[in-house]
Amino acid sequence: MSLVVVGSVAYDGVETPHGKVDRMLGGAATYIALSASYFAPVKIVAVVGDDFAGEDVDLLASRRIDLTGLERVAGGKTFFWAGVYSADMNDRTTLRTDLNVFADFKPKLPESYRDAPYLLLGNIQPALQKSVRAQMHGLKLAGGDTMNYWISDFRSELLDTIAEWDFLLINDSEARMLSGEPNLRRAAARILDLGPRILVIKRGEYGAILFTKNGHFIAPGYLLEEVFDPTGAGDCFAGGFIGYLAGRGIDRAETIDPVELRRAVIYGSVMGSFCCEKFGVDRFRTLTREEIDARYRGFEACTGF
Amino acid sequence: MSLVVVGSVAYDGVETPHGKVDRMLGGAATYIALSASYFAPVKIVAVVGDDFAGEDVDLLASRRIDLTGLERVAGGKTFFWAGVYSADMNDRTTLRTDLNVFADFKPKLPESYRDAPYLLLGNIQPALQKSVRAQMHGLKLAGGDTMNYWISDFRSELLDTIAEWDFLLINDSEARMLSGEPNLRRAAARILDLGPRILVIKRGEYGAILFTKNGHFIAPGYLLEEVFDPTGAGDCFAGGFIGYLAGRGIDRAETIDPVELRRAVIYGSVMGSFCCEKFGVDRFRTLTREEIDARYRGFEACTGF
Repeated sequence: MSLVVVGSVAYDGVETPHGKVDRMLGGAATYIALSASYFAPVKIVAVVGDDFAGEDVDLLASRRIDLTGLERVAGGKTFFWAGVYSADMNDRTTLRTDLNVFADFKPKLPESYRDAPYLLLGNIQPALQKSVRAQMHGLKLAGGDTMNYWISDFRSELLDTIAEWDFLLINDSEARMLSGEPNLRRAAARILDLGPRILVIKRGEYGAILFTKNGHFIAPGYLLEEVFDPTGAGDCFAGGFIGYLAGRGIDRAETIDPVELRRAVIYGSVMGSFCCEKFGVDRFRTLTREEIDARYRGFEACTGF
Repeated sequence: MSLVVVGSVAYDGVETPHGKVDRMLGGAATYIALSASYFAPVKIVAVVGDDFAGEDVDLLASRRIDLTGLERVAGGKTFFWAGVYSADMNDRTTLRTDLNVFADFKPKLPESYRDAPYLLLGNIQPALQKSVRAQMHGLKLAGGDTMNYWISDFRSELLDTIAEWDFLLINDSEARMLSGEPNLRRAAARILDLGPRILVIKRGEYGAILFTKNGHFIAPGYLLEEVFDPTGAGDCFAGGFIGYLAGRGIDRAETIDPVELRRAVIYGSVMGSFCCEKFGVDRFRTLTREEIDARYRGFEACTGF
């Protein structure tokens, strides 16, 4: 069943120890949508300038992503971000952020999106995330991502927003910041009191932890032989996670099967791992569902005991 | 079947965000032996000064650890180390290292130790590790630990030593240094060409990865609600790992059952997690085998999918 994805569509300049690309398709919504598209039909809500290239539209369209909600601002330029990764690729430094048309992004949902049952809100201002959710009816599962800036400077708006979410996906340092608690287990317990029934804490190369009121599930990261570019891996995780649940038609009115949630986390890890294998979104030009399922089985093989 | 453990027995001064202890029992061999003693009979080889306290002897003896090989140097002082941990306890700074009697440690194996089938060599000079192995006959499994100093400054001695080992247990930065390869999967492949058929790469709170020629097994770290003091956790991991294999009578002449190796890694993680729950070795004053097995089952419950 359909998933609406809201967030940034951008151009990125990225340098890693494996190479440098000055300008390529990027943005959270791009990665989330591409990743989720292997599991469920995806509808994107984002804004670009009139510099947005036809070949990038074609890539998204080739994954049958609905672009009705991709607003084009005449005379505007697409969000541009540039950064460089450390030698071990666990840290990165932002070199440039030109918000461009993204600075005035006010997500407008096309009528045809409003009864989609799944919603993933990428990292944008919490009040905008809230306004999107309010435009939808009949949601089965809604949730999203956030970042340190919103946690520290827009705290009350953020708390108000996530109180309505079914799931929250953040990284470990954000979880500590949001909860004020350094220990992840305690941090998670506090965050589950803020509204979301499902919390996924992403730990980069070390995997992710799923928390619900009933316990937790620790998934290690998939061990790649070559990491070319980690940009977008966390967003691909999110896309695989919600995409899997949407594809299975998981209903929030039900008690969600904990096994399905665990599988969703593993599919998230699988999608994050593929993302790192090439620069930017390049891996998605050739990736097949068969490869995804084979890596899922590989995950089982190297984690069972 | 019996396990010989060789390494440091020491006094530690430790400060973590949870408190400070000026002087308490520590040392790699202490932690390894205490941890392994839950699975198999342990015989220790180490050196202390005449300041070594009766109550510390008693703790080791209470776990039925054979102390025949614990040499006491009259007029000497026991190895002392002091350090302070960072706020997140992932880094530590050494404040003081007084090698004392450990500076001249020449491990001498009592006759009664020489036909023990299992040997774990803690982090000491590679040539000494080699000499210990040479004193034993009828070994089923032998291996150990090392550190960055031996990897960089005693490289050829170290390579000569580990060429004879069945297993090597090191952390991720040591694996990268030893192999000259930043990617862990490639690093592991190179290290498996140096002799050991079994490589365990420890990743602190993120768990461990087991590598053999047949593939790898990724175990996440157990998620504690409270980490008081991580000192000794890696050594307790090693003790649980080899202790479990010794207790099961695993023979290196056989093709080792990969399931047993995976279980050994999980028992290692379990023992490392208990170690962090109190300062120094305190958790071992009350820990029972029943608690260990319950946490092993807890590990299964929070990692299966």
